Amino acid sequence: MRTAERIVGELRRRGELWEPAAGLVALRGDAFALFARIERLVASSAADVAADCDGTCDAWSSPAALPLATLARASYFDAFPQWLTLASHLREDAETLERVARSADPAAQACEACAPAGAALPPAVCYHVYAALADRTLLGAAMVTLQGTCWRHEGDRLRPLARGWAFTMRESVCVGDDDTVERFRAAGIARGGALADVLSLEWRLEEATDPFFRPTAGGRALLQRLKGLKQELHLSVGDEAVAAASFNLHERFFGEAFDIRLPNGAAAASACVAFGVERWTLAFLAAHGTDPRRWPALPTHLTHEVVP
Amino acid sequence: MRTAERIVGELRRRGELWEPAAGLVALRGDAFALFARIERLVASSAADVAADCDGTCDAWSSPAALPLATLARASYFDAFPQWLTLASHLREDAETLERVARSADPAAQACEACAPAGAALPPAVCYHVYAALADRTLLGAAMVTLQGTCWRHEGDRLRPLARGWAFTMRESVCVGDDDTVERFRAAGIARGGALADVLSLEWRLEEATDPFFRPTAGGRALLQRLKGLKQELHLSVGDEAVAAASFNLHERFFGEAFDIRLPNGAAAASACVAFGVERWTLAFLAAHGTDPRRWPALPTHLTHEVVP
Repeated sequence: MRTAERIVGELRRRGELWEPAAGLVALRGDAFALFARIERLVASSAADVAADCDGTCDAWSSPAALPLATLARASYFDAFPQWLTLASHLREDAETLERVARSADPAAQACEACAPAGAALPPAVCYHVYAALADRTLLGAAMVTLQGTCWRHEGDRLRPLARGWAFTMRESVCVGDDDTVERFRAAGIARGGALADVLSLEWRLEEATDPFFRPTAGGRALLQRLKGLKQELHLSVGDEAVAAASFNLHERFFGEAFDIRLPNGAAAASACVAFGVERWTLAFLAAHGTDPRRWPALPTHLTHEVVP
Repeated sequence: MRTAERIVGELRRRGELWEPAAGLVALRGDAFALFARIERLVASSAADVAADCDGTCDAWSSPAALPLATLARASYFDAFPQWLTLASHLREDAETLERVARSADPAAQACEACAPAGAALPPAVCYHVYAALADRTLLGAAMVTLQGTCWRHEGDRLRPLARGWAFTMRESVCVGDDDTVERFRAAGIARGGALADVLSLEWRLEEATDPFFRPTAGGRALLQRLKGLKQELHLSVGDEAVAAASFNLHERFFGEAFDIRLPNGAAAASACVAFGVERWTLAFLAAHGTDPRRWPALPTHLTHEVVP
């Protein structure tokens, strides 16, 4: 990531980017203003996907954590356990709290004083949707857009803007019949490409090659299910590229796991379209430089500009 | 919180509010649209505080976590350790990950497989500012606004919208000389009251009565420093009230702790103005009901409407 390193280095020297801790990035100034502009454009693109499918895109908030049971139900632990980040609060007994407060090294003492993890920090925001629709029969296709902070601890692969421990994910999710979710994904691909064009970014569509954890039986099944069902939009960052959006068909995987049914009683199919806002920002900076005077003019939204 | 419970109950029945886990709230529909409107108005109010002080309010992103060392430097562990939430990822050795993946109860197994906490989830967003300015001499007053998810695990006191494990905090922070930070806080109080007026909410200003953890020596010192220096804006929620904003003078506490210096070499003073977006939303719903047809019209922003 030579170009990415150069961009990050320039922003660092200007004081517009810093890392309070490994995998966590802070932005200010023109870089943060750009991030916020791109965040809005991405939101607009994601919302438009449903409109393209004659649906209404319902905007949901994205809770900052989710129950571990939701990830278990989604077979997450078969596939990507190495990325998981958990939220734990301190044990609440007075003795523990006194020990932390009186310690010469309270930060270390606090790490020892955690209760078992109370929740998982989301590895993707679409899990909120499957969990909320669980054990229901849908009247029609559900289309939802939501944005939140996602967490994937990818060890020494973490790079500012390109791969964060915490990063910003916007998703649009469709749960319904096969035909609708396929049209939804096709609309997502069209909207993703249109967004890259509006930002004057070089892009290409690729079959995903996610690095899976050594698959167990369950993981292998998941891998098969996903085979050929995940497309990614790659944006150029110098000679390299980042996967800045993904377009995923899950067949009936989540419908079965969360018991979400169609009116005819069959398990629902699902698709999601996911954008990584930091990576879009990085690709924009790589294409157009860090000097805002050289950036192309950006619209504020994209509604109904693409017919898929 | 009888009125709060009624409001939450109404939103729940409409499917506009649910709790994926204790202390975590999800919104959709009109409730989420209202939250987003109020979020923008709060952001505008927070940014205007600096303008009122003839300053430029620098917008920063708010990283999703911060180093435990930052909280230690801020003496956080002396005061509020019982609220702290930590982010931990799984140990990365293959054996641990295999055990999680193959377990019949992977969620429970994952809780056992955590590495020591890597970071703290922010109890307030202003810590990012003191940490970023640490060990520097300021040329002039720094004024920053930022918004992020904050975490305070208040055990069985958690209530939807009124007191979340995770909630949305917008802050404006000023680090500078005594006179500037006092004017900044005064402007914050004026902007907070003006926002309540625009939303047609009943409010009053109160001295804060934060429930402090049994103070250690350091905690007691902090308590003294804060004495009389924290004002809160309380919004009516039926017969009760929520502290929806706070206006805090820290004297030189953070300037000394983080070695932030004025041009004359003295430690800088600081102030922060903090808004809890869910509580503003709750107070609005309590005052105007959950039916959007009965809500007063809201402006999109408030820039330069108040002269403090």
